[in-house]
Amino acid sequence: MSDRIARLDAGREVVRAKDRLGISWQQLADELGHSLVHTTAALLGQQPLSANEAEKVGTMLELDEEIVEDLALPPVRGEAALDPTEPVTYRLQEALQVYGTSIHELIREEFGDGIMSAIDFSMTFEREPDPKGDRVKLVWSGKFLPYKVN
Amino acid sequence: MSDRIARLDAGREVVRAKDRLGISWQQLADELGHSLVHTTAALLGQQPLSANEAEKVGTMLELDEEIVEDLALPPVRGEAALDPTEPVTYRLQEALQVYGTSIHELIREEFGDGIMSAIDFSMTFEREPDPKGDRVKLVWSGKFLPYKVN
Amino acid sequence: MSDRIARLDAGREVVRAKDRLGISWQQLADELGHSLVHTTAALLGQQPLSANEAEKVGTMLELDEEIVEDLALPPVRGEAALDPTEPVTYRLQEALQVYGTSIHELIREEFGDGIMSAIDFSMTFEREPDPKGDRVKLVWSGKFLPYKVN
Amino acid sequence: MSDRIARLDAGREVVRAKDRLGISWQQLADELGHSLVHTTAALLGQQPLSANEAEKVGTMLELDEEIVEDLALPPVRGEAALDPTEPVTYRLQEALQVYGTSIHELIREEFGDGIMSAIDFSMTFEREPDPKGDRVKLVWSGKFLPYKVN
Amino acid sequence: MSDRIARLDAGREVVRAKDRLGISWQQLADELGHSLVHTTAALLGQQPLSANEAEKVGTMLELDEEIVEDLALPPVRGEAALDPTEPVTYRLQEALQVYGTSIHELIREEFGDGIMSAIDFSMTFEREPDPKGDRVKLVWSGKFLPYKVN
Amino acid sequence: MSDRIARLDAGREVVRAKDRLGISWQQLADELGHSLVHTTAALLGQQPLSANEAEKVGTMLELDEEIVEDLALPPVRGEAALDPTEPVTYRLQEALQVYGTSIHELIREEFGDGIMSAIDFSMTFEREPDPKGDRVKLVWSGKFLPYKVN
Amino acid sequence: MSDRIARLDAGREVVRAKDRLGISWQQLADELGHSLVHTTAALLGQQPLSANEAEKVGTMLELDEEIVEDLALPPVRGEAALDPTEPVTYRLQEALQVYGTSIHELIREEFGDGIMSAIDFSMTFEREPDPKGDRVKLVWSGKFLPYKVN
Amino acid sequence: MSDRIARLDAGREVVRAKDRLGISWQQLADELGHSLVHTTAALLGQQPLSANEAEKVGTMLELDEEIVEDLALPPVRGEAALDPTEPVTYRLQEALQVYGTSIHELIREEFGDGIMSAIDFSMTFEREPDPKGDRVKLVWSGKFLPYKVN
Amino acid sequence: MSDRIARLDAGREVVRAKDRLGISWQQLADELGHSLVHTTAALLGQQPLSANEAEKVGTMLELDEEIVEDLALPPVRGEAALDPTEPVTYRLQEALQVYGTSIHELIREEFGDGIMSAIDFSMTFEREPDPKGDRVKLVWSGKFLPYKVN
Amino acid sequence: MSDRIARLDAGREVVRAKDRLGISWQQLADELGHSLVHTTAALLGQQPLSANEAEKVGTMLELDEEIVEDLALPPVRGEAALDPTEPVTYRLQEALQVYGTSIHELIREEFGDGIMSAIDFSMTFEREPDPKGDRVKLVWSGKFLPYKVN
Repeated sequence: MSDRIARLDAGREVVRAKDRLGISWQQLADELGHSLVHTTAALLGQQPLSANEAEKVGTMLELDEEIVEDLALPPVRGEAALDPTEPVTYRLQEALQVYGTSIHELIREEFGDGIMSAIDFSMTFEREPDPKGDRVKLVWSGKFLPYKVN
Repeated sequence: MSDRIARLDAGREVVRAKDRLGISWQQLADELGHSLVHTTAALLGQQPLSANEAEKVGTMLELDEEIVEDLALPPVRGEAALDPTEPVTYRLQEALQVYGTSIHELIREEFGDGIMSAIDFSMTFEREPDPKGDRVKLVWSGKFLPYKVN
Repeated sequence: MSDRIARLDAGREVVRAKDRLGISWQQLADELGHSLVHTTAALLGQQPLSANEAEKVGTMLELDEEIVEDLALPPVRGEAALDPTEPVTYRLQEALQVYGTSIHELIREEFGDGIMSAIDFSMTFEREPDPKGDRVKLVWSGKFLPYKVN
Repeated sequence: MSDRIARLDAGREVVRAKDRLGISWQQLADELGHSLVHTTAALLGQQPLSANEAEKVGTMLELDEEIVEDLALPPVRGEAALDPTEPVTYRLQEALQVYGTSIHELIREEFGDGIMSAIDFSMTFEREPDPKGDRVKLVWSGKFLPYKVN
Repeated sequence: MSDRIARLDAGREVVRAKDRLGISWQQLADELGHSLVHTTAALLGQQPLSANEAEKVGTMLELDEEIVEDLALPPVRGEAALDPTEPVTYRLQEALQVYGTSIHELIREEFGDGIMSAIDFSMTFEREPDPKGDRVKLVWSGKFLPYKVN
Repeated sequence: MSDRIARLDAGREVVRAKDRLGISWQQLADELGHSLVHTTAALLGQQPLSANEAEKVGTMLELDEEIVEDLALPPVRGEAALDPTEPVTYRLQEALQVYGTSIHELIREEFGDGIMSAIDFSMTFEREPDPKGDRVKLVWSGKFLPYKVN
Repeated sequence: MSDRIARLDAGREVVRAKDRLGISWQQLADELGHSLVHTTAALLGQQPLSANEAEKVGTMLELDEEIVEDLALPPVRGEAALDPTEPVTYRLQEALQVYGTSIHELIREEFGDGIMSAIDFSMTFEREPDPKGDRVKLVWSGKFLPYKVN
Repeated sequence: MSDRIARLDAGREVVRAKDRLGISWQQLADELGHSLVHTTAALLGQQPLSANEAEKVGTMLELDEEIVEDLALPPVRGEAALDPTEPVTYRLQEALQVYGTSIHELIREEFGDGIMSAIDFSMTFEREPDPKGDRVKLVWSGKFLPYKVN
Repeated sequence: MSDRIARLDAGREVVRAKDRLGISWQQLADELGHSLVHTTAALLGQQPLSANEAEKVGTMLELDEEIVEDLALPPVRGEAALDPTEPVTYRLQEALQVYGTSIHELIREEFGDGIMSAIDFSMTFEREPDPKGDRVKLVWSGKFLPYKVN
Repeated sequence: MSDRIARLDAGREVVRAKDRLGISWQQLADELGHSLVHTTAALLGQQPLSANEAEKVGTMLELDEEIVEDLALPPVRGEAALDPTEPVTYRLQEALQVYGTSIHELIREEFGDGIMSAIDFSMTFEREPDPKGDRVKLVWSGKFLPYKVN
């Protein structure tokens, strides 16, 4: 349990520090040489950080050494890392409720029996300007994996 | 309860009929003049169909009149329409577990306190060719809605 | 996790302080220049407070500096912030059980396919004098958002 | 169980019939001499209808005699009558998550230790015109009931 | 969260102190001038205690000042205050499983559409001597509240 | 499963028949020679009825022979027989949430380590006239059973 | 909560101490003059211990005075005291899944409508030598309690 | 699903038939040459019956051929076969809550690291005469299985 | 819902037919030219069958044409297809509880950050003769998939 | 509770220490003379370690004496030791969802009515080289245990 809490708490410290210092996720991404979404996920505990990467972040955000060590712990993926009733999150889930069966059928028609990988997967985040109000644009890209037949 | 079952069952009949007749979701979308994902979602019970639209689909897919009527019932959105443990669906959920907090923080940094709408929302589905194996590409676009301050 | 606890605990400290000092929610609302319900929600952790707003509250309620800092953390919306079995809360939920499907059908008839926003939303709270016993009056106002058709 | 299903199914038949005949909830309310929300709730199974009232509705909506009988069954209140993940309903619940603790504290300050009744309770539903998009306005009015001290 | 824990823990301290000092719930009730069950419930965190009442109890039970302060916190009603699988509690729940639908129908027949209030409510606890083994006698008295028709 | 449904459905038929014929639970109790609450519980499937008793009820309420047979099936006690979110039932549960720990401590003080039986148990139901509004009075009487020490 | 944790933790200390000192549950039972299973259950927090009994155990196991005090707290029965997925426990539960309905029917045939008490109850634990592998033998003895008819 | 329902329903038919014909579980056990508890469990769907055994039971209880066939389906063990809130069943579960950790520790002390098998397992059921009220006596016997170390 | 039930019920019909006709899973696998486990899974609804394959099975097992059609429906993977409390299944789950964190750490050490695929996956089933009692041997083989870093 | 946390936390310390010192699970297994998987499971809290074994590990990994003591506590098997939504773990569970009913039927056909033991059980872990990407290979071996018939 304590690894999980240590890693997630370190992520919260990152958020507080970047807010305080006025550093953006993109600046952190540039420093680490990863994409925006991957970097954010890594700093929030969902992807691994090497000791070296943690060190860079620690310097940039003036973090305590203990926080830096915790950032290099293995990622803590899984349900406990997310509150599905938080309003931003809930709407993403709701979109899955509405479009999940469609995605399933569209994959079945286009690719056959298999899945869209959540491992060989990447996501981008973008502001989409729109005169009626700007939009959040997320692009999900996951490799199709066919079920093995033997 | 029976509306929900009627609507979802009508959707299953659509799937069986299009598989039997070799008609694609895109052909159905073209007939209705809606996008691919919206059409699929509507036929699977997640978006409304007018009586007229249901009729067109019924003719194209040689459906019984009763099925056509059920297709025009109000949509049945909500958790009961989706099995979150079905493997395709699960991986989408898992991607949310991994990236949900990141999306939350990125929206907060870029847009401020608010959400990505699941109502003023659209999604596209595409095959992304890739030499290492083709990929599923989903683009989510939702209007940013700021929390009202009063 | 710890942000959530810090923010909610800061809210409990606000309650204890205002009870001790005899300061009302309305006085706090006047100080901040927000409505009564928005102010209460913000102080209980459900809406954001700027550092400046937190400072004003801290002065008025003689709060420790640490509590003031915690009040300016991002809001912690979601299920974990509320005990749905607490008797006041439960009756509100029960009213939704009784009237929820009615609201759904009335919106569908009057506005069409869509929702009442919980984001572009405000609420007022009022004592409604009544000879048979005063009443609690809540006015909910949320923008209608139509489902996007594309 | 079967009472519940019979009553709720009768409600769905009412919806289908009024949609087919172009009769509004308000017309039904006028016929019964009750308010709009109370009438809608009663027809959807959440408030009682006398045999006489059920008969009037049956005539107006050309319902089968069996449906009319089912409409006069006792109401079927409780969680099973509502899908809390349906998007319209969910946003109402979410508003409670955000404002529930505020309502609790505001009642405690204004009225003392007690609740807002969900029994001696009424609700109105209204379209609130707004240049930025019309709004749904709900007014909740419930008698304050103080906890008995003895 | 911490209010709840503070209030319930204060209740446990009351139990330990009264056991140690040989003081009965009835003696505490006499001191406070409330009924036996109301007093017990208040001291266990389910009904309010004024600062003055808390002080009296603190003196009688030689409690620390901090515990006395916690006793005057608002009550912490709700599911989290009770373990429904504790054997004494479970049997009360089981009695509701067996007699709940009967009470519902008997109220409906005798009073009409409405509820037995849990707010305008009182309970007594008594030992009922019986040659075959003494019995626990609980009398529940709650005001009938008719559903409002409008 | 089917026994349970058969027995509970037979109970619903009893309710419909007695409502239609204007026969009260007390008249049924007098016919069977049992108390009011026990009779109601038995007819709703929570206590046993002999074939002879079922026959008497069938004659009085003009029930089909099949219903009469189902009334003599073994009782179907347990959670599935009751909807705890039904508003009448919920308030009884809520009273247990508020007073459950008190009953536990009062039994422990008065009787020692043990329980109030839900088997050697009886309940009465009564209308308690009150100028401020009549009350529902329930008397619960259960034998105290001490934990066996060996 | 803290009573429960204190009592259960005291039980874990008993286990560690008896393992360290090589003292068996039977020796503890002999010291207290209770049966083997009752003693074990009492020391693990499921049956009461008098202050005197706790003192004897404390001396025998060289426990801290605080642990001794905690052992004399009221028992903490209920679901939270047991992990039903722990493999030893699970198999006992599974046996109930397989034989529970049989026990129910056998009691109904042999004794009539009623239960096997879990309060006027005792259990023995024994090693049953067997050439094909020794067996665990548990004898459950509970008083039959007939449902009260009134 | 349908196997489970068929097998369990066949078991209910066995109960109705034996009640109607006045045949006891022991007589059925004698006919099949199995123990009382094993026979009861087999007839209620928890242990297998050969086609030949099902035939014998069918003749003795005058069952329809279809029921006899269903009795020979594979057993349907698992949670869905049992209602854990049924009062007889619940008390058995409660005894596990009270004594489960004791059994675990007693097995660990006496046998070492391992379990009491629920597969190489048998149970007897007996009426234990007692002047203070007869008792239900269950003897559980399960082979000890040590965890494999490799 | 009905696809799922149709497909799973078709699987139960396969089991009954092969038991009645004395045909083994291996014979069915040989007929279809797939491995033993894949064939069994496909026939039980977890992998796809072509119309042609379903036809072959139908002929071999003398199935009705409707069952044959249902066998060719899409697979119905997900939690609802399995009862995790069924004793055979439970022990597999328990093995995961005991060894799951070990597999996680061993994969992390040997392969790095990633998963063992459940899609590019196969399993074999074998009887492993052993003088102390034959054993069930399962070999799981899943491709390692590294988390994408971008 | 605290045993469980102590044991699992000790396991996390083992992971951190071996990562820091570059010691592999296989080296630890060789030191203890157990298999790779058994050793890993034991160090992660799922199998017992003698005081002597804990000491050896402590020396090799330079652990604090307190950690060493905690490693020798009894194992803490059960659901709470594993997060089933962690992606590696989830895929193992999903494989059970897909193949669980097949394993059940294959055991029933090959061995008869019984289970694959999770106690007399062992597992191996291996990297399976594959030109299309190396694979994780797990071999599960569990003794078949027939249900006892008596």
